[in-house]
Amino acid sequence: MGNKNINPNLKKGAYAQSNSSVAELAEGIRAGDRAALSLGITLIESNHPTYLQKSMELLDLVKPDYIRSSAHRIAISGSPGVGKSTLIESLIQEKPKAKFAILTIDPSSEQTKGSILGDKTRMESSSTLPNVFIRPSPSNNVLGGVGSKTREVMLLCEAAGFDHIIIETVGVGQSETIVSKMVDLFILLVLPGSGDEIQGIKRGIVELADLVIVTKSDNERVNIAKQSARAFKNALHILSGKYSNKSIPVLAVSSYDNKGMDIIWEEVQNYKTYFSEEERLIKLRQSQVFHWYEQQLKEDIYRKYLADEKVQLKLAEHRKEIEKGSVNVWKMRF
Amino acid sequence: MGNKNINPNLKKGAYAQSNSSVAELAEGIRAGDRAALSLGITLIESNHPTYLQKSMELLDLVKPDYIRSSAHRIAISGSPGVGKSTLIESLIQEKPKAKFAILTIDPSSEQTKGSILGDKTRMESSSTLPNVFIRPSPSNNVLGGVGSKTREVMLLCEAAGFDHIIIETVGVGQSETIVSKMVDLFILLVLPGSGDEIQGIKRGIVELADLVIVTKSDNERVNIAKQSARAFKNALHILSGKYSNKSIPVLAVSSYDNKGMDIIWEEVQNYKTYFSEEERLIKLRQSQVFHWYEQQLKEDIYRKYLADEKVQLKLAEHRKEIEKGSVNVWKMRF
Repeated sequence: MGNKNINPNLKKGAYAQSNSSVAELAEGIRAGDRAALSLGITLIESNHPTYLQKSMELLDLVKPDYIRSSAHRIAISGSPGVGKSTLIESLIQEKPKAKFAILTIDPSSEQTKGSILGDKTRMESSSTLPNVFIRPSPSNNVLGGVGSKTREVMLLCEAAGFDHIIIETVGVGQSETIVSKMVDLFILLVLPGSGDEIQGIKRGIVELADLVIVTKSDNERVNIAKQSARAFKNALHILSGKYSNKSIPVLAVSSYDNKGMDIIWEEVQNYKTYFSEEERLIKLRQSQVFHWYEQQLKEDIYRKYLADEKVQLKLAEHRKEIEKGSVNVWKMRF
Repeated sequence: MGNKNINPNLKKGAYAQSNSSVAELAEGIRAGDRAALSLGITLIESNHPTYLQKSMELLDLVKPDYIRSSAHRIAISGSPGVGKSTLIESLIQEKPKAKFAILTIDPSSEQTKGSILGDKTRMESSSTLPNVFIRPSPSNNVLGGVGSKTREVMLLCEAAGFDHIIIETVGVGQSETIVSKMVDLFILLVLPGSGDEIQGIKRGIVELADLVIVTKSDNERVNIAKQSARAFKNALHILSGKYSNKSIPVLAVSSYDNKGMDIIWEEVQNYKTYFSEEERLIKLRQSQVFHWYEQQLKEDIYRKYLADEKVQLKLAEHRKEIEKGSVNVWKMRF
């Protein structure tokens, strides 16, 4: 049905000008209206205190169910250049009937305050498909949260009827860990013969993975990809897996030749079966709720503290000291 | 001279048992005593409020000069597997008379609360050299700061006479940006033919780089490395460099063949000359002080807020709600 009050041409940052009430937005989102979904996400991602209450209302109205949602929540992670976007496109092609929301943790450039080439060069063929919704999440904001509203955005997408949520996360570091705590399945991509085997283990990312995929297993790289897959299997055999009674599959695939996408979906389905037993998925999601709360808490605290007048005064004092040339920062404490 | 009161066998976390006064520690550090330096770092990195005052005193006593220190502060960054540790070892070998402090932002495993294989597999040959001090910094702590005390640790190392500080940072993401704001020179390593050219640009990391090094330019990879270097040079030509009047050098080197280390040091020296003109280094470091303050502020705020009794009560309430099964986290605000 959609909602006629919502102008589909409105872009990011446009909620204030949209004149849509929160109720209209919620109705539009639940009806699967993309413009409403986009505006809703913009509202949720806004850090302005004016919109905090409204974004809480919106979430109340769309009634997401973090625990019992039937959506597949999948993270796709791996070093830059490993082929995440290409793999996601191939995975989408295998499932033309599914509705995909692709949320990319956008590594926005700190200096230009925007991403260079960011969205344009990736997922060009999918971005026009009617069953695919692509939305980059800002990774940097003043509160320092990596993808600090990605979870809420995911819930809005689910309310809009997207049943496959794919969170593409860039490279390594904090974002990996944070994202792993908001998905059902964490898929780690590795390049064949890149030394990612040992590095992935060192970095602790393998511990987050439910599925390891060696990419670019095509042409002359097939053998080296198979070797990498074996090395990973051995490494995973030594380390304890994520779940004591489930081994971590390691696959070698080629997005280029479109080989292996069916096997990936098969493994995803295997997990679905595994999760459905003994309420495992429900327990997993329940365990994630506290992480969600903790992340939100940190941001709330920071915002609240900075609103205090005394804090503002002290802050201004420190700022002046620094401007005057003091560099003994360790003395400027709160 | 060293300090006889400091037991050299004391390991990390041992400050409390060391019986060393802060004054003794400071004296030991300024005398170049490694055990004192290690203990001092442990003190600085401790997040326990008891040690906060002591770590401030220690910094006061060692009298670091963030702005006018003659030390070279260099970050070495790049995707996992690119060969950061190997390059650092080769760079050290070229300068047997320099004193190196290598601070690695340690990607400690979140689940095991420690790093797997972390330190043992890397920089084996350097770790026993008398002119090299290697210290991993924890990247995860309760306050969520990536390398939250790395700057202070760097200052302690400088006070102990280390004149080359190398901060090795893992992969991409927030840590890159944070580290770039505490060094004079940010060196980005990229793999030949890895697609890092375009990815590095997309990620905005190239904007942080003062020097780009294509690694593993050996044997059959020499040509592909040269191609990558050219691609980077072209990309950097289009993008504006970090400094308007200084182009970013792009080098292809081989740590394996030990080729190119002299050129890297030459470029570092070129920067030193560049920085010495028009007080550029001083201005750069002055501009970093506010970032330092901001990072510290966030951590202070969080610690202070959580110490409040009312906050603790509300926190306990929320915790109970979550335990009872509430998942509407967006309603549990501060």
